[in-house]
Amino acid sequence: MNHIYLDNSATTQVCREAAEKALELMTQQYGNPSSLHALGFGAEQELSAARRVVADALQAKPEEILFTSGGTEANNLAIFGAIEAKKRFGKHIVTTQIEHPSVLGCMAQLEKQGYLVTYLEPDVQGKISAEQVADAIDPETILVSIMLVNNEVGTILPVEAAAKAIARKKAPALLHVDAVQGFGKLSIQPKRTRIDLLSVSGHKLHGPKGVGALYVADGVRILPRAFGGGQEKGLRPGTEALPLIGAFGAAVRALPRPEEGLAAIQDLADYCREKLERLPGVVINSPADGLPYLIHFSTHSVRSETMLHFLSAKGIFVSSGSACSKAKASHVLTAMKLPRAGIHTALRISFSRWNQRSDIDELIAALQEGMETLAKGAL
Amino acid sequence: MNHIYLDNSATTQVCREAAEKALELMTQQYGNPSSLHALGFGAEQELSAARRVVADALQAKPEEILFTSGGTEANNLAIFGAIEAKKRFGKHIVTTQIEHPSVLGCMAQLEKQGYLVTYLEPDVQGKISAEQVADAIDPETILVSIMLVNNEVGTILPVEAAAKAIARKKAPALLHVDAVQGFGKLSIQPKRTRIDLLSVSGHKLHGPKGVGALYVADGVRILPRAFGGGQEKGLRPGTEALPLIGAFGAAVRALPRPEEGLAAIQDLADYCREKLERLPGVVINSPADGLPYLIHFSTHSVRSETMLHFLSAKGIFVSSGSACSKAKASHVLTAMKLPRAGIHTALRISFSRWNQRSDIDELIAALQEGMETLAKGAL
Repeated sequence: MNHIYLDNSATTQVCREAAEKALELMTQQYGNPSSLHALGFGAEQELSAARRVVADALQAKPEEILFTSGGTEANNLAIFGAIEAKKRFGKHIVTTQIEHPSVLGCMAQLEKQGYLVTYLEPDVQGKISAEQVADAIDPETILVSIMLVNNEVGTILPVEAAAKAIARKKAPALLHVDAVQGFGKLSIQPKRTRIDLLSVSGHKLHGPKGVGALYVADGVRILPRAFGGGQEKGLRPGTEALPLIGAFGAAVRALPRPEEGLAAIQDLADYCREKLERLPGVVINSPADGLPYLIHFSTHSVRSETMLHFLSAKGIFVSSGSACSKAKASHVLTAMKLPRAGIHTALRISFSRWNQRSDIDELIAALQEGMETLAKGAL
Repeated sequence: MNHIYLDNSATTQVCREAAEKALELMTQQYGNPSSLHALGFGAEQELSAARRVVADALQAKPEEILFTSGGTEANNLAIFGAIEAKKRFGKHIVTTQIEHPSVLGCMAQLEKQGYLVTYLEPDVQGKISAEQVADAIDPETILVSIMLVNNEVGTILPVEAAAKAIARKKAPALLHVDAVQGFGKLSIQPKRTRIDLLSVSGHKLHGPKGVGALYVADGVRILPRAFGGGQEKGLRPGTEALPLIGAFGAAVRALPRPEEGLAAIQDLADYCREKLERLPGVVINSPADGLPYLIHFSTHSVRSETMLHFLSAKGIFVSSGSACSKAKASHVLTAMKLPRAGIHTALRISFSRWNQRSDIDELIAALQEGMETLAKGAL
């Protein structure tokens, strides 16, 4: 079926370059990078090449990149690994109410272990201010974990302010940034921003699901969560998932420069916003200065799931919020104190570089039809 | 380069069926299984189908299978997850000296936390007896972790004896079996054997690297190691690595029945053993009743790495022991008390269903040439 895919923040179609690389690494260059023969050596070279590509995209060194099975594992490793390394310096952690479940899940666990977690509250647009972050950090803060771009509404969080506050207050804290939604879309320079740990994922940027990476700045020490054959400096053992890692590298290599990509998507987002705003009752929840790759809005007339299925039947694929938390009301929208009707009629559309204006036109027409024909249901 | 691959216990070439499925799931059925639209639903169906295939191969229920990023993660989840669930019942763990580093690494960590670990010692053939296992288990044992097939020498361990001893001694122990080297090769029925937790991996049976599974028997409770979006019953969160999981399923589906596969490989192994035994000085370290998929032997004349590179230059790929622990002397051979010369001249060859007698002929000829021409070096 020919379809219009507007759910790129949930996952993306793998690009040709990445799929070809995965295929090559499954069927030809299929050695184990730990093997000492020529096929193992070839595999190790592929591993190094992919590492260099991901490092380059972050203006980092290859040895600062650890491959993981995805964003969730990268976040878990960063958070638990940092806490384990820093626990003798304090018990205080700073994060936000609108982090991804893979960050919030770790935090809940750490609270059970006696850590004190400050959850910063967003405003109604999903924004967290630089002052909020700075105020929350104290000399006993051992970890600040803050996302670069929120995955539901697209707000950009004050990561740089966090780094500055840590330095100014002489806190022992490591700064972890979940950059899953920002990587490949915004220019990220962890070294320059003084980020210690940064999580990225392959499948949000036309790489395959099942691979991600954790940037660990030179000189920053974290402790492993898993134990085994010593791969990835002992911090992430297990035979390297070479087909995915190579494909991830190929997908990163195929990305346009962030500024170029961003300009094209901004154009698309502006076009879309303008059309959405003309639909009666529709309110856009994403801030105008958020990442244009995603637009979150509420129809205020048709329940999210009803509209989602209506659109899906027409081959138009959007999200009813975060794909991670199927039935639950979004914790992000709840934290933003969005009105009930806004939450229950919310949709998220998210772009990739392959979307075009005609996709927006079809979406808008379908939305309009849906709003006119679908029963309202109890909101 | 045309080559002869005899390192299938390290990793395997991905089969056509698996590679095609991965490609389909990267480029066509690329949805996020958590997404509510048609593409998400299609992805979820693929996930379920793969789960059913892996479950069927273990005569288990689909809901007893959790997908992981590989054998190492499955072992870590099983061990830490079991200990976390059972810690109030005791402090004693039973394992063996010849487990994979991903099991031994967890054990070292648990010892640091105050757990008492009994490491069973193998005999000179790498065997652990049923009596040894039974004797080690006491009423305070909370975990028995024992591999099905040793990855270096191919011995088959007394898993069933462990299950029986746990029941007889009324130990609170969960039984974990690292079946990475046995899955798809031996008939494994965890339910019938009363195994609680069983780890398998995709890339040892012509599936891709980066995917594995943990069987968790119905009614057995373990606690998660990672936290996030609730996937895999909350025990293994993160967007499912669908291209790999689907490929894993396809690879399992493409396997011959274990008995058929085994008969063919036994034939090959017998042929190989006979030829190896005729080479002067060569001693086969693998027991005759081990898994025929791998043969471990020592030339007693040429250092492992020297011979490995000599063979590699001829396009024949073997292992100098376990590919997991590059430079270190194998902990398995050390535990077996193999003489120094035996350890330093050891090689492992491991078969897949794609190997033929002609591969053995070429290997033997090359070995012979190597033994005749290579300088001995200090052993």
